[in-house]
Amino acid sequence: MYYIGIDIGGMSIKGGITDENGNILAKGSIVTKPYNPYRETVKDIAGLCKKLMAEAGITEADIKGVGMGIPGTINSQKGVITYSNNIHFENVPIVKEFRKYIDVPTYIGNDANCAALGEMVFGTGKGYKDAIFITLGTGVGSGIIIDGKIFEGKDGAGAEAGHMGIRIGGDKCTCGKRGCWESYASATALIRQTQRAMNRHPESLMHKVAAEHGKVSGRTAFIAARAGDKAALGVVNRYVKYVSEGLISLVNIFRPEILLIGGGISNEGDYFIKKLQRQVSLYSYGGRRNPYVKVLKASLLNDAGLLGAVALCVRH
Amino acid sequence: MYYIGIDIGGMSIKGGITDENGNILAKGSIVTKPYNPYRETVKDIAGLCKKLMAEAGITEADIKGVGMGIPGTINSQKGVITYSNNIHFENVPIVKEFRKYIDVPTYIGNDANCAALGEMVFGTGKGYKDAIFITLGTGVGSGIIIDGKIFEGKDGAGAEAGHMGIRIGGDKCTCGKRGCWESYASATALIRQTQRAMNRHPESLMHKVAAEHGKVSGRTAFIAARAGDKAALGVVNRYVKYVSEGLISLVNIFRPEILLIGGGISNEGDYFIKKLQRQVSLYSYGGRRNPYVKVLKASLLNDAGLLGAVALCVRH
Repeated sequence: MYYIGIDIGGMSIKGGITDENGNILAKGSIVTKPYNPYRETVKDIAGLCKKLMAEAGITEADIKGVGMGIPGTINSQKGVITYSNNIHFENVPIVKEFRKYIDVPTYIGNDANCAALGEMVFGTGKGYKDAIFITLGTGVGSGIIIDGKIFEGKDGAGAEAGHMGIRIGGDKCTCGKRGCWESYASATALIRQTQRAMNRHPESLMHKVAAEHGKVSGRTAFIAARAGDKAALGVVNRYVKYVSEGLISLVNIFRPEILLIGGGISNEGDYFIKKLQRQVSLYSYGGRRNPYVKVLKASLLNDAGLLGAVALCVRH
Repeated sequence: MYYIGIDIGGMSIKGGITDENGNILAKGSIVTKPYNPYRETVKDIAGLCKKLMAEAGITEADIKGVGMGIPGTINSQKGVITYSNNIHFENVPIVKEFRKYIDVPTYIGNDANCAALGEMVFGTGKGYKDAIFITLGTGVGSGIIIDGKIFEGKDGAGAEAGHMGIRIGGDKCTCGKRGCWESYASATALIRQTQRAMNRHPESLMHKVAAEHGKVSGRTAFIAARAGDKAALGVVNRYVKYVSEGLISLVNIFRPEILLIGGGISNEGDYFIKKLQRQVSLYSYGGRRNPYVKVLKASLLNDAGLLGAVALCVRH
């Protein structure tokens, strides 16, 4: 049996057909048209699926399930997109609409939650049951896995750990509140922190690194810090504290087996992950008396969205 | 059928026999002897149970289950107290030991978790499935109820929401970390905040209130604020922000149906609860698009521990 995974993003909608082990038989994508009526978009997605089935040489009867990962607040029980900022969907009964074209069991979930489940089924999280998955990207996304299942709160409106407060009265967040974790621990925030340190330290290697790469990015401070630049190391260590602050809160609340770190910044690898591990181990509640929580790098990379959507069906 | 609830505290161990509706047939207590070997303490608890059974005119055969609420880290699966600071227990197989005396199904849980479940089964939480229960007392305790069941993390080492960080690098907490919610939102913290405001405002009514009560307490600022004292109102409103900061994080993570507020400070009633509700409604993620989360006062009061322990059996 085969599965279809759909990864709906603000720029493109990716689709793929896989077997139950996550091996990809065919994949492709279409451009997201965020201002199209939803019926058009769903029709386009169904078209993509049919094209991929033809490519893989299979029919609807071979498909055990379709999974879709979608940014925003998703009511997975009802199969309805409550609200998605990126694709301008509000109260869209996407499952019902999609099954007009391809009538197989179809599951939807928030994209970060799907990515978390994907890691559990096909990635670093294999063999674990309880995990928190954090993506450090434009924002801070979170997926919570309890006993092998996605936890998403009432009507899918929870699991927004990026909006925990870590500094009361701090920087204003896009959500309207001040001091959210996301305002300090996202890649966007790291770039801001890097830029500020560069302004204070005209002698720092970060200027040369940024010039070479044509811009200040989430990598600038890390590259300069590895090369021994003091100001850059300051930025990195402070950023590690910001990220850890939220991770430790999540450990104290959930005490999962593992913390999975994904998103652009996770590519800094062991250098970054080990610093996080040190903070988490030092400051989690109860110290050594309580179970050790491992910090690990997520592994699915580019296919995370697609395999996450497939994982939705596999675990259903 | 009847149940026995045991509430183990640092000062006393309370016991009670109830029916399945939480009506108390008999109750009593013994003094906690924190430095006794655990076998002695368990023997004393069993003795209390036998006394209460005699009082209620029932025998072991009438008892469907025994529940025990215990402060600290409790491995409820294994029936072992991993660590309890207050009663100096470490790795104590309390269930096994207790059943040497009274051989009926026996369940243990962290006292805050039990209190949360008690509210769901017998108190304000009746009819709800998803709740976060917060006690504002010496510390900030938390109990997390998901789908009617206690969520406690691996080996019972989660649900320590009092140790979420709300001010990175802030006041030092007893747990070793800085800026924990508990350091700002506990009754202890409120007293500290009140004292500081009193030092700054020698004209404040708070001085008179404290003198009348013989001490500065968690009520001082509330009493003076209700009487129109400006400095006291400042203390109350700042304290409300501290409490709300953690509540909002918990809403963003769990999106429960209700937040239950217990502990000494909850006795400030509607005046306090309505202020919390306003903050939670204003600043929770997604605003009105997401399900409304009600803030409610817990209702079991003095029997919360005992009925919480009974709830452990009822829900098992």
